[in-house]
Amino acid sequence: MSTHAHPAVEATIEADPDVPTVRIVREFDAPRELVYRAHVEPELVKQWLGPDSIGMEIDVWDMRTGGEYRYTATRDGEEIAHFYGSVHRVTPNERIVQTFGFEEMPDAVSLDTLVFHELPDGRTRLEGLSVVYDFESRAGMLASGMEVGVQEGYAALDRLLASLQGKADGA
Amino acid sequence: MSTHAHPAVEATIEADPDVPTVRIVREFDAPRELVYRAHVEPELVKQWLGPDSIGMEIDVWDMRTGGEYRYTATRDGEEIAHFYGSVHRVTPNERIVQTFGFEEMPDAVSLDTLVFHELPDGRTRLEGLSVVYDFESRAGMLASGMEVGVQEGYAALDRLLASLQGKADGA
Repeated sequence: MSTHAHPAVEATIEADPDVPTVRIVREFDAPRELVYRAHVEPELVKQWLGPDSIGMEIDVWDMRTGGEYRYTATRDGEEIAHFYGSVHRVTPNERIVQTFGFEEMPDAVSLDTLVFHELPDGRTRLEGLSVVYDFESRAGMLASGMEVGVQEGYAALDRLLASLQGKADGA
Repeated sequence: MSTHAHPAVEATIEADPDVPTVRIVREFDAPRELVYRAHVEPELVKQWLGPDSIGMEIDVWDMRTGGEYRYTATRDGEEIAHFYGSVHRVTPNERIVQTFGFEEMPDAVSLDTLVFHELPDGRTRLEGLSVVYDFESRAGMLASGMEVGVQEGYAALDRLLASLQGKADGA
C-alpha cells in the first residue's frame, strides 16, 4: 500500500429526506480553474467521464449559457446509451446549471447545479445538486447505477488532474 | 354579461404539499397544434406572453432540443427584467422541457415541463409543471406575482388563438 499526502476520498452521495434531490460532494487535489476546465473542455471531459467499463464519445459539448451537450456511451464498440442536456447558465470557474437526460428514457430529466468551491492549498470541492419532479424518479435515478459512474469517473478525474499538473497520479 | 359557449376558465395553479413543484393547468378553445405553435413561433409568443402591463421583447426564441430563449420585459419603454432559459427537449405538438430563470436573480432557476393534451371538440389542455430545489424557492416563485402573468398572459393567448382561427375573440 502506498502513502498518499491526500488519500483518495470517495464522493458522498446524499438523498435529501424532504425534497427529491441528490447531492454529490467530492474534493479534488487541484485548483478550481483546472477542475472547471476538466468540465467544459471536451478533450478533457472525454478522458474521465463515466464508469471505467464504458466508453464515452462526445458528440456536442457547448458549455455556455444557452448551450447544449450530447454524448454516447459505448461498450465493446456498441452504442448503449445517449445522454444529453441543455445548459441553463455558466459562470466561469464557479457554477454550471444544466439539464440531464438520456434518449432511452425520454421522460427522465433532472436539473443539475455544479458548484466549484475554492479550498486552501490549491484544492477544490465540487458540489453537485440534482432535482427531479418526484421521489419515485429519484429512486430510479439512484437505482440506475449512477454511483459507479460517479465514483469511477471522479477517480479518473483525479488521475487526469494529477497528470495535467505534472504530478504522479498517486495510483 | 355575454354568453359564452366555452366560458373563460382561469388557470389552476397548485403547489404540491410533498415536493417543491407548481402545476399550472389551463384549457384553450383551439386545437393542440395551434396552441403549440403559439409557444414556439416568436411572432406569436410575443403577442400573448406575460402580464398586460408589461411589454415583452423577444431576443432569442429557439425552441428546439438543445435550443435557448431570452426575452426582456419592459414597462414604459424601460427594461425591467431579463428572462432566459435553455431547452432540454422538444417533442413537436406534445411536450417542451426547458429551464427558466432571470438575470436579476441568477440563482433562481426552475425546470419546466409543458404538456399539450388534445381534448375533444378541438380543445386543448395545457399542463405546466415546474420544480425548484427547495420549498423556500417555491414560496419565492409563488410570491413573485407569477399568477398575474399567467392569468393575463393566457387570457391574451385565448384572444390570439380566437383570431388565428378567424373567430370573434369572445371579449
